[in-house]
Amino acid sequence: MAARVLLQQCLSARLQVTEAEEAAEYAEIQRGTLIYVCFCKGATGDIVPKMVNTLLNVKLCETNEGNYVSVLDLPANILIIPQATLGGKAKGRNMQYHYNIGKENGKALYAQFVALCEKEFALNCRCVEAGVVVRHGTYGNRQVLQMDTNGPYTHLIEF
Amino acid sequence: MAARVLLQQCLSARLQVTEAEEAAEYAEIQRGTLIYVCFCKGATGDIVPKMVNTLLNVKLCETNEGNYVSVLDLPANILIIPQATLGGKAKGRNMQYHYNIGKENGKALYAQFVALCEKEFALNCRCVEAGVVVRHGTYGNRQVLQMDTNGPYTHLIEF
Repeated sequence: MAARVLLQQCLSARLQVTEAEEAAEYAEIQRGTLIYVCFCKGATGDIVPKMVNTLLNVKLCETNEGNYVSVLDLPANILIIPQATLGGKAKGRNMQYHYNIGKENGKALYAQFVALCEKEFALNCRCVEAGVVVRHGTYGNRQVLQMDTNGPYTHLIEF
Repeated sequence: MAARVLLQQCLSARLQVTEAEEAAEYAEIQRGTLIYVCFCKGATGDIVPKMVNTLLNVKLCETNEGNYVSVLDLPANILIIPQATLGGKAKGRNMQYHYNIGKENGKALYAQFVALCEKEFALNCRCVEAGVVVRHGTYGNRQVLQMDTNGPYTHLIEF
């Protein structure tokens, strides 16, 4: 496994993107998908285009008619949340993170992932016309998050 | 795999427990752990005590001093959310749920899981004294959820 991603649908979400000691700033989205991302040991940049292609095209967003389409096709917003804890493995009463990528490599892959999502949204006419956005958390921060859902409709996708 | 569980820490959370057409009623907790549960095909009641033992004792709750203890030891509340979508597997642009348990068996295991969590909380003096609670969603419902976190601190545990 090179990466583990969790998807939750939201009506709105707000994530703090500043460090605890700074004045709070937030990344906010209205209706869309939360994408929690964790890269594992050995992951390289090759995996990122495949991840973005899958995540932006998998049909998990509900239309007003109750059908499911991709986030690009709805279109809806995305909020990307770095979430290293997703790579943890329970051992006895403790969680271990031996399979997680190192901080510098993880930060670089995360930046590449965010940039590619932003590019795909910018190239998609439907997204541009609808004004939907890509927002993201700050790698290494505590991810202070509020969300409001009409069903988190939680999915896990491993790469 | 018999079950997949996702854990998120929250400062507060509110889950609708009535059907859409009824007057809305909510299960609410203050600080604690959200436990999203999905049972897979072939799961039996034997797995439930092991799941509850692991989930209530794994050290994922942060104390005011920044240490990590179990939800029973903090102690904090839990909100159990049935989340069948967690068992989905991406195939092309679609999610498939071939590995999920049937509805009747899933409902029975979910009820057993909730009952055992409630029993463990009721037997734990620290939980009783602190007045922490077990709340849960209605199996088969759309899980309309709001949550506020100081870091969702998301973990996956498979059984």
